Amino acid sequence: MGSVTASLGDLPLRDDLRGLTPYGAPQAPLPVALNVNENTHPVPDEVASDILDDIAVALREVNRYPDREFTSLREAFADYLGHGLEPGQIWAGNGSNEVLQHIMQAFGGPGRTVFGFAPTYSMYPLIAQGTGAQWVAGQREADYTITAEEAAAQVEQADPDIVMLCSPNNPTGTPLRLDVVEAVYEAARGIVVVDEAYQEFAPRDASSALTLLDGRPRLAVSRTMSKAFAFAGARVGYLAADPAFIDALRLVRLPYHLSALTQAAAVAALRNADTMLGMVDEIVEQRDRITATLEALGYQPHESWSNFVLFGGVADPRATFEALYARGVLVRDVGIPHHLRVTAGTEAETTAFLDALASIDSGA
Amino acid sequence: MGSVTASLGDLPLRDDLRGLTPYGAPQAPLPVALNVNENTHPVPDEVASDILDDIAVALREVNRYPDREFTSLREAFADYLGHGLEPGQIWAGNGSNEVLQHIMQAFGGPGRTVFGFAPTYSMYPLIAQGTGAQWVAGQREADYTITAEEAAAQVEQADPDIVMLCSPNNPTGTPLRLDVVEAVYEAARGIVVVDEAYQEFAPRDASSALTLLDGRPRLAVSRTMSKAFAFAGARVGYLAADPAFIDALRLVRLPYHLSALTQAAAVAALRNADTMLGMVDEIVEQRDRITATLEALGYQPHESWSNFVLFGGVADPRATFEALYARGVLVRDVGIPHHLRVTAGTEAETTAFLDALASIDSGA
Repeated sequence: MGSVTASLGDLPLRDDLRGLTPYGAPQAPLPVALNVNENTHPVPDEVASDILDDIAVALREVNRYPDREFTSLREAFADYLGHGLEPGQIWAGNGSNEVLQHIMQAFGGPGRTVFGFAPTYSMYPLIAQGTGAQWVAGQREADYTITAEEAAAQVEQADPDIVMLCSPNNPTGTPLRLDVVEAVYEAARGIVVVDEAYQEFAPRDASSALTLLDGRPRLAVSRTMSKAFAFAGARVGYLAADPAFIDALRLVRLPYHLSALTQAAAVAALRNADTMLGMVDEIVEQRDRITATLEALGYQPHESWSNFVLFGGVADPRATFEALYARGVLVRDVGIPHHLRVTAGTEAETTAFLDALASIDSGA
Repeated sequence: MGSVTASLGDLPLRDDLRGLTPYGAPQAPLPVALNVNENTHPVPDEVASDILDDIAVALREVNRYPDREFTSLREAFADYLGHGLEPGQIWAGNGSNEVLQHIMQAFGGPGRTVFGFAPTYSMYPLIAQGTGAQWVAGQREADYTITAEEAAAQVEQADPDIVMLCSPNNPTGTPLRLDVVEAVYEAARGIVVVDEAYQEFAPRDASSALTLLDGRPRLAVSRTMSKAFAFAGARVGYLAADPAFIDALRLVRLPYHLSALTQAAAVAALRNADTMLGMVDEIVEQRDRITATLEALGYQPHESWSNFVLFGGVADPRATFEALYARGVLVRDVGIPHHLRVTAGTEAETTAFLDALASIDSGA
């Protein structure tokens, strides 16, 4: 490189990207990392070994382009999700972010709007903007819940092209009742996406929005293998919707977007779903322990159906974040005043977090 | 699913996507598939075994998100490319299509234009349109070459935001001289991308546009592991550019877009670059044999610096395509009148193609 290099401002960047900074949760190598809602339990050895066997087979033909229709993977997802779903109703991408991007490319884009009830998953506005669409933020109650009537009224008024419903909601953990989904679908002219990234951590008897797909061609239910499946590093998100909805996503996906290695790894992991999901109950147990202990410590945790807990009553989130950091524990300041978010880790990690927090003056 | 399902026209698709059909090279299981410019040589066993070892290590932490900055992979690409490049000048994605999409998202988008000399890689217009940008096609000479003066004049007149220079060009195989790149860069106000997907198949003494990067912050040179590296199934594309250019791509990429398995596989493959690239000479030999034999058969092959040959003199490309198909050989009709395109395969595959073609009346 020459001695003089350019700065970002010298380049002909798209006008609406000027001044932005990239998405960036800190990648700090702390002993107890509870900041990005990962599943902190490694994939069990016997499953990893099974996955590796399938990858070894895929490597034999890695000189060829992968199956563009990821046929085996769609069959495996249809089987896993149940509810009578067929492979033609399944889509997948490199993480649920890419799946959501495909939706916004197909149904969003310039001049269109994407709506969600704030605070919600921070990537929704970024992905919407990436396609040239405008993000419109709706309101929740003070406890982050929302009723069917209120949700429908807001959607009717905003009249968006796409509605994002995060269920349970990130970063608050708040459950979303299915009557809200039904009411929003009726009120919406456009696409309705229920993002069930954390659905496996909800109570066993809680219904999924998958039960609502039949007869609702504008509805999609997205999932991820990053959380319950402990597969964040493999980048596999997916969704179920009407076959026509899937056809629309084929128009915008880059051909061969899912590598042969990704397809092989995901199929093998899904074959081991029972083992992969074996940690879910333990994580839910730690989540509930976090909630109970936070209450005992005088904080205000919000009800969570996910693998994390958002808690209020933090006088100075930055100070508490840093005090935890100094004790080797990484949590997340999601930008909500007087709140922090923590992922439920293993029993030992959860203990480390709770002990560290107990040793810090809340300042309240 | 209910008995009545929707059709694509029932959904609120983006207006400019209506009536389109998805990208689709046929995925036909023929014995001799020479249609999508793959490297038909499998990855050697000892390399596959080395890759698998690295993937096994990555699987131990696959429950965690991957390194968002793919640090090791960028170091490996900088080493492989040479020319004094540093990791801060490297970017990568799930195939070079995704890398190009990142460029068009950052510097293209609604109201902007992307320019290339037609015929060229068919994904450029599709990716441009996906970001809302408009594709503008320039002209080549009858033999698909283009001079520096003519290229600069066309770029000056079109005044695009992004110029795509495919070198060597797909689907024609045509070499692109570096004086064209220099002239286009001078004439262009916007970004200039040299797509060197097939560069490794060019003559050994041919210079890469990598030599032009210094002092040209609007220039990017993209590559892929799909072709020379026999890694199409792994989906790894990359580019080199000014560090500020890389910063722009960080604004539009989805976080964690490269999986831990992809990163591990690519790093291991690059460590074995010499072996991985061992088939290149053999493929070049088969390409030149195809050219010579096509001439002897009365066809008009175009000069190719890639791993494929475009040839004219085909009276009825559809009939010849189908006659080859019936003989178990898959080639590509790229839509140029009286032309077909064939990938250089192994010696046996090349022989199968040439024998099959020789048995067909050219109709000329």
